[in-house]
Amino acid sequence: MISHSTSMGRHYRPTHLSLGMSLFCPRFPSALLNKDLLRYCLKIKGLPFHTEWINISAVPRFGSDIGVEKTNIGGQGIKAYTLPIIHDPSTGTTIAESFKIAQYLDKTYPDTPRIVPTGTESLHTAFRTAVSALESPIYAFAIPKTFELLSEPADREYFRNTRESFFGTTLEELTPTGDAATITWAKVKEAFSTYASWYEGGGKYFAGESPCFADVVLTGKVFWIRNTLGKESTQWEDVRKWDDGKWEKLLADFEQTYN
Amino acid sequence: MISHSTSMGRHYRPTHLSLGMSLFCPRFPSALLNKDLLRYCLKIKGLPFHTEWINISAVPRFGSDIGVEKTNIGGQGIKAYTLPIIHDPSTGTTIAESFKIAQYLDKTYPDTPRIVPTGTESLHTAFRTAVSALESPIYAFAIPKTFELLSEPADREYFRNTRESFFGTTLEELTPTGDAATITWAKVKEAFSTYASWYEGGGKYFAGESPCFADVVLTGKVFWIRNTLGKESTQWEDVRKWDDGKWEKLLADFEQTYN
Repeated sequence: MISHSTSMGRHYRPTHLSLGMSLFCPRFPSALLNKDLLRYCLKIKGLPFHTEWINISAVPRFGSDIGVEKTNIGGQGIKAYTLPIIHDPSTGTTIAESFKIAQYLDKTYPDTPRIVPTGTESLHTAFRTAVSALESPIYAFAIPKTFELLSEPADREYFRNTRESFFGTTLEELTPTGDAATITWAKVKEAFSTYASWYEGGGKYFAGESPCFADVVLTGKVFWIRNTLGKESTQWEDVRKWDDGKWEKLLADFEQTYN
Repeated sequence: MISHSTSMGRHYRPTHLSLGMSLFCPRFPSALLNKDLLRYCLKIKGLPFHTEWINISAVPRFGSDIGVEKTNIGGQGIKAYTLPIIHDPSTGTTIAESFKIAQYLDKTYPDTPRIVPTGTESLHTAFRTAVSALESPIYAFAIPKTFELLSEPADREYFRNTRESFFGTTLEELTPTGDAATITWAKVKEAFSTYASWYEGGGKYFAGESPCFADVVLTGKVFWIRNTLGKESTQWEDVRKWDDGKWEKLLADFEQTYN
């Protein structure tokens, strides 16, 4: 299933030149936080691209073959190859990590709408710290559920090993049950309530009338919850009602405008 | 010592009309987080003002008399009168809470440098969440030390009562000792290391070449630590060395440019 690794390497040439950039995403939907948000960034900027789907167990070899830098994981000095990765044939650049990619796109295509408005790099970095500090309760639900959605044995093994090592617990222990599930889900609600409290200034989006990286991150999180836990889940029914329907509305708005 | 309450009330008229706005600050230096930062905001904007010092035990009566809104404290739905308060005689406006005051000043004086650049209100709100999430270890050192600096019995009683109620512990229990002090101080260092990691984009300040609210908040925190723990303290000696001297340099820069 490592469909790209044979033709990759540092001399990678995309097969769909007419479609512009190659965006490499994990093959299973919403496997990892923030991985679909690059699609939004590219659509907002109106840049042509095509998506290539990579099995997650193939990511270490793929990252090494395509010659991208490893990404810092979780602030503990751990580095690993991660998706999304973007390859831009017009500059020959290959980059991993969503914020770095967004900044690259802003710099390289200055005539397109900015994802990280000028002067907001540092504020966006603080924003990401604030989001991360609140998101661990979401992991407790979405990570084990993601494992259930994987079918390839190699992917299941890779996912279990990397996540159990990162969280320092088995996937089964990570999953809250009974009262713990109720308490942890209440923390997810609280996290979203804090996220909602940040929207100031009266615009539709974080910075006014057009979406910026912060909007993309939060929308990506809602997308991830809906697709991982499922449209029919009681949890998604909850999320739809939170914060006066803000999250469902934001996601619907993005899907309508940028899909 | 409630020197202003007799002449205050909703019909407050400042005594120093020629000096522009009245900025009301707590009488003892650096008593509370973020309370001196309004001075920086007013200096950055070049707006004339004078400072009036209020004993903290007089704040509830002062706030009520001057007719300002109460401020949300700690996100638990608790409201109280807090300093700084600003009174602007040119519009008859009286406001409490540093971020609201900064936004008021930007709106009312559009020809002065913006403290909250257009489109960054939401990002600044997220920034404040991120800062707060990391600052409780600082409280453990600075709050008990602040108590030591108070001399008026009424102020000491007010400070003890309000802080012990807020933290749910006595000031003595709040103060870390022995190994706990070492561990808690390491967390203060970690908090500043995270704050330092936010500076992106290569400018001197958060948003480039001129300071914004985020810079003012972080500089205010350094100012508060230095003045509360003391220039001669071992802690200040530590802070000076952290993050390649960033914090001492930032504070020195602010004090040189805006004092």
